Parts: sequence; structure tokens; C-alpha cells
Amino acid sequence: MAFQNVLTQRLKLAHPIIQAPLAGGGDTPELVAAVCEAGALGCIGAAYLTPAQIAEASRAVRALTVRPFGINLFAPLPAPDAPRDPRPALERVAPFYAELGLPAPALPVSGGYAFDEQLSAALESGASVFSFTFGILPAGAMEAIKARGMFLAGTATTVAEAVALEQAGVEAVVTQGSEAGGHRGTFAGPFETGMVGTMALVPQVVDAVRVPVIASGGIMDGRGIAAALALGARAVQMGTAFLTCDEAGIPEAYKQAILAAHEHETRLTRAFSGRPARGIVNRFVVEVERDDADRAILPFPLQNALTRPLRSAAAKQGRAEFLSLWAGQGLGLARRQSAASLVARLATETAAAVGRLTTTD
Amino acid sequence: MAFQNVLTQRLKLAHPIIQAPLAGGGDTPELVAAVCEAGALGCIGAAYLTPAQIAEASRAVRALTVRPFGINLFAPLPAPDAPRDPRPALERVAPFYAELGLPAPALPVSGGYAFDEQLSAALESGASVFSFTFGILPAGAMEAIKARGMFLAGTATTVAEAVALEQAGVEAVVTQGSEAGGHRGTFAGPFETGMVGTMALVPQVVDAVRVPVIASGGIMDGRGIAAALALGARAVQMGTAFLTCDEAGIPEAYKQAILAAHEHETRLTRAFSGRPARGIVNRFVVEVERDDADRAILPFPLQNALTRPLRSAAAKQGRAEFLSLWAGQGLGLARRQSAASLVARLATETAAAVGRLTTTD
Repeated sequence: MAFQNVLTQRLKLAHPIIQAPLAGGGDTPELVAAVCEAGALGCIGAAYLTPAQIAEASRAVRALTVRPFGINLFAPLPAPDAPRDPRPALERVAPFYAELGLPAPALPVSGGYAFDEQLSAALESGASVFSFTFGILPAGAMEAIKARGMFLAGTATTVAEAVALEQAGVEAVVTQGSEAGGHRGTFAGPFETGMVGTMALVPQVVDAVRVPVIASGGIMDGRGIAAALALGARAVQMGTAFLTCDEAGIPEAYKQAILAAHEHETRLTRAFSGRPARGIVNRFVVEVERDDADRAILPFPLQNALTRPLRSAAAKQGRAEFLSLWAGQGLGLARRQSAASLVARLATETAAAVGRLTTTD
Repeated sequence: MAFQNVLTQRLKLAHPIIQAPLAGGGDTPELVAAVCEAGALGCIGAAYLTPAQIAEASRAVRALTVRPFGINLFAPLPAPDAPRDPRPALERVAPFYAELGLPAPALPVSGGYAFDEQLSAALESGASVFSFTFGILPAGAMEAIKARGMFLAGTATTVAEAVALEQAGVEAVVTQGSEAGGHRGTFAGPFETGMVGTMALVPQVVDAVRVPVIASGGIMDGRGIAAALALGARAVQMGTAFLTCDEAGIPEAYKQAILAAHEHETRLTRAFSGRPARGIVNRFVVEVERDDADRAILPFPLQNALTRPLRSAAAKQGRAEFLSLWAGQGLGLARRQSAASLVARLATETAAAVGRLTTTD
């Protein structure tokens, strides 16, 4: 029970470690529950789930553990304008549809998710922590979450976003450094200005808000956890490190891609969803973004809906070149192991890293 | 004398802190000497200095301190091809020349610096540490530096660059995280792929090389120093934090810009030198990079020579909108103080940050 603080005590965690929500199938109930049983916080990334799926996933987690767990949604976004001319986007993905044996792509009518229904299901999920990204929740939603006794955390990529979240009433801020894999949470400015590295972002946010800060982005082992705590964070949120766990639900080809890739081989891309996200560069990213990409990629979440059949087929066929290989810049430190052994290793490594700080070598 | 290790002992440092070379006038002999006297390593950024200026600067440092100091050069780069059509670049800066009362700009014949002559002067400088960036030095230069008993360090932005530097014979690797201000040191791939955040870069480099790692990028206070050491670095190199010191030689308008800016207001730009460098976004950056920027910016170092008269005039006139305001993403933590009080504060803060790691709060 080392590295206890106001946040770990509030969340009843043995370790200051949160498994990042891995919307898209990574965070199986088995992964979430194993993380919780190991003394960290497992989270259900529910952003792409229907209300029925949210109920089912949380029931499955509760069947496996009585420990606290978290749930995460995307803040509701205004529906994107219908694209003026969707043909370039359809034409750009059509050859890949054909290559995977799929019928020709059609313009999605909605990529969306019904936030209010998702929220209702999340409120009934039994989760102790509710986190969100992509913005600030409507005031009514924030009140409903807190009225259920859930701990409320929002995601910031800049100091201004962290301050806005605190003023809106969150109880903790998750800082998403530029190293982080997956979708950027930036909501109060252009995505480019929200690319601040964890080393710079965490202490500046810590100085600007009173609520606890949870650091994410580039943290992969106990050295990173100790570093984040030294910067003033009260806990870390780690995604990529959990993706290669035995219990993670991503395709084996995706796990293999993470284990084989190097720190300079990820980049931000809009190719898969229309919204910038960090992933391993593969053939799909390169070919979709090759030129005139602005015209050939639909706005989020339409592009996400457009590429979903492709990604599903690629997953079944084990073709990593068409998968959205979300991963952070620390991916060279990923290991294949069980979630329980990962959390135990992280705890040991964190103590060792702190121990080295107090000795001469 | 806390936080001692193989590197601090080899460099005879009381603190694991290196003042980054601030080529362009920031690192006055007064700054370098004050840093050394405070128990950290001051460095002369000599990349833009003539051999005579290198001799003069190092003589001035030696007159102020008997403690070890460092010197830094850019690795020699192949001369850029003559631009096919330099007119767009000249036309783009011409209005700013006029606005500052300068005669119309002319195409520079050479932006260059004569590495061999600079190296000869650096070898005679009395510096104990020789560091370089932008590549790997020729083998003969590396041998000459080590034969003089100087400690040799090179700059890496990826794991592969760090390994290449170690194989070439450096005695330490400076990792330059994506947060860092000033020119990118990337040399073994596209600049975009060398934008790895410090939190992710340091541990992956530490695992890949046997020589000590010096972390740079986003480190601004004792929390950052403790974090970098936790990641496995043996020392930190800090630039932006020293730029606002009383002894730093940059224009007052530049110091004010750093103290007023926020973490999301820097970006990489080629507008000033032709080579990507991180600085505070100002009018010059926006207007030079507004469109068709590839054609309107000369290759490094020609663009640097083209904009030098402009930057010199702007400095005299106190016009920050035309200065290259190099700064890292941690700039919100910059303070105005003497170098001695900065180093003392950093040492105190580092101990406090480590102390907090071993207590419950």
C-alpha cells in the first residue's frame, strides 16, 4: 500500500494506477476485473457501446469482482455537417473494402452514439468512477453522476482545459500528454495546440487546479509512474501497457504490432475516425492520408462509421494493415503478460525507481 | 550533494543539472559562469560563433570561474542545394525588412559556419564537456575531442539515434524530448518521427544504451528533475528555465514573451532558420508559414542567414513579433531570477519532490 494519497484513498486503490478506458474492445470484463482485483482501477471504455452493451459489460465486471471500477464515455459533440461531397472519402476506402472481400462502402447516415441513453446505462452500471473525454459534460449529466456517488473525472490536454473542467465541477483531471495513444481529448482549441508532452503538462496543470491530477501519456512502467508522481500527479492512467495483456480483447495482430513497433513509428491520424488519434503508422494511414486528405476523410464520427466494416473484417482476417493500431509513444516498453502480473510488476518497479532516487549509484 | 551518480561525479557537479547551450546569445559568459559556480554545468552554445568569438567567450568564462564548463557545436551538415527560385522567400520577408527600416533582403551566399575552425577553437576553450547536436561528428573530430580529455555527449531524439551515437563513441546521450525549445536535433529520419515526448523517450533510450542519459525537453523545476531521474536519466539539461535568468543575454522582449506565454502557444517552425525548431508562435511565424511555406522558406542555414538582419533589428527595437522566441512547452514555469538562485531553488525542489514520493499525503 505504498504511494497512497487523497486520490488513492478516495478510490480505494492499493496502487495509484488506472487502466485507461480502451473503447473498441480492448477492455474486456476479464481485463477490467483483473486490474481491479490486482488493486488498480479497471475501466470500461463504453463510448462505442449501446446502452444494452453497457449494461452487459458492467454486469460481467461485477460478476468477476466486488472491487470499484470505472466507466468512460465521450462527451456529446454537435453532429457534424453533412459532407459537401462524400465521394472522395468513399472512393479512397473502396479499394480496401474490395481487398477484404466487402461490398462497396456506402455513406453512413450516422456514426453516432446516443449520449443520453449511454449515460442512463452508465449510471446504472455500478461503476464507482465516471470519466469522460472530448469536452465537458452538460451540467445536468455532471449532477446526475455525482448524485449517484460516482467520482467524476474529465480529460484535459492543456492547462486551460483543466481549469475549465475544474470550474465545471470535476473531482479530478486526467492530463493527456502528447505521447498518449488513441483519440485526442482536446476540446478548447485546435488539436495541434493540445499536443503538450506529459513532462511539461502535468506540473503546469497541477499548479493551476486544486483537484487531483491523473497523468497519462507515455507512462509504461514503474519508472514512468514514479516520474508522474514526482511531477505532482496523484495517479497515472495507462492504456498501451494494458493492451498487450492476455485479457485485452484486441486482435492478436494488433498486439503483435505493438510489441514489434518502435517509439518513432506512431503518429496522429484522422484516417480511421475523422478525429486525430495516435496510432502505429500502417498502410491504411499512409494511403488514406496520402494527399488531399482533408477532402478524402469524413468528419468524426462519420469516418469512424465508414471504416468500421473494414476494421471488423481486417480483425477477423488478422490484417494489421487495416486496423486502427492506437498506441502511445512508450510502446517499446510493452510486454505480454497477465493484468495481475503487470500491476504487480508496476508496483515493484515504482518502489525500485523511487528507491534509486534516494541512493547514489 | 544529493542525487550523485556516475555522471555527476565524472563531471564534478554538485547537482545533476546542465544549462542547455543557448546558441544565439542567451548563454553569456556571466550566465555560464554563474551556473558553474552554483554547482551545475554551464555551457557555451558556440554554434553561431566564429573561432575568435569562441576563444573570447571561453576566456571570459574562465576569468569568472575555475569550475568545469561545457561547449556545444552543431555537427557539420552537407551544404544545402542552392534554392531553385529564392524569390518567394525573399518576397515573403521583404515587408518585414521594410517595416523595421532595413534595406531590401538579398539572397545569402552562405549561412554557414566553418566547423573545422570552430572545432579547433573549442578544443582550445578549456571546456571539460563537448556536446553536439544535428548529427554525429566525423570520427576524427570525436577522437580529437576525447584526446583532449573532454567528455563527449551527443543529442538524440529517437532510440535509434541514441544507439548510433553510442556506437560512434559518445560518453553520454542527451535525449531531446518533443517538449524542448529550439532546434530539433533529429538526424536519422524525418523530423516528424523524432517528436517523442520525454516521458516516453527517456526510459526507452536508457534501456537501449549503456552510457549515461541526460534528459531534456519540458523540464523546468525540481519536480521535472526528480521525474527525469526516476525515468533513469543521470542528469537533466534545461534551456528555457535559464533563458529568463538575469544573466541571460536574450532581449528583454524575449524574456517577457516567455514569462507571458502558455504551454500551448509554442510550435515547431521553419520560418526563422529553415530547420524545425520550437518557439512561441508570433506574427513572423504565422505570416511566413501562412501558405505555400515550402517554397517561401530557404533551406537551413540559408533561411537563418536571411532572417538574421531582421532579428537583429527587431532585438534592438524590442519587437518580439520578429524574434525567434525559442522556448519549450514548460515555459509557464519560467521565473525571473539569478542563475545562482535558480540552481539553488532547483536543488531544493528536487529534494522536496523526492521527499513527497516517500510520504502519504
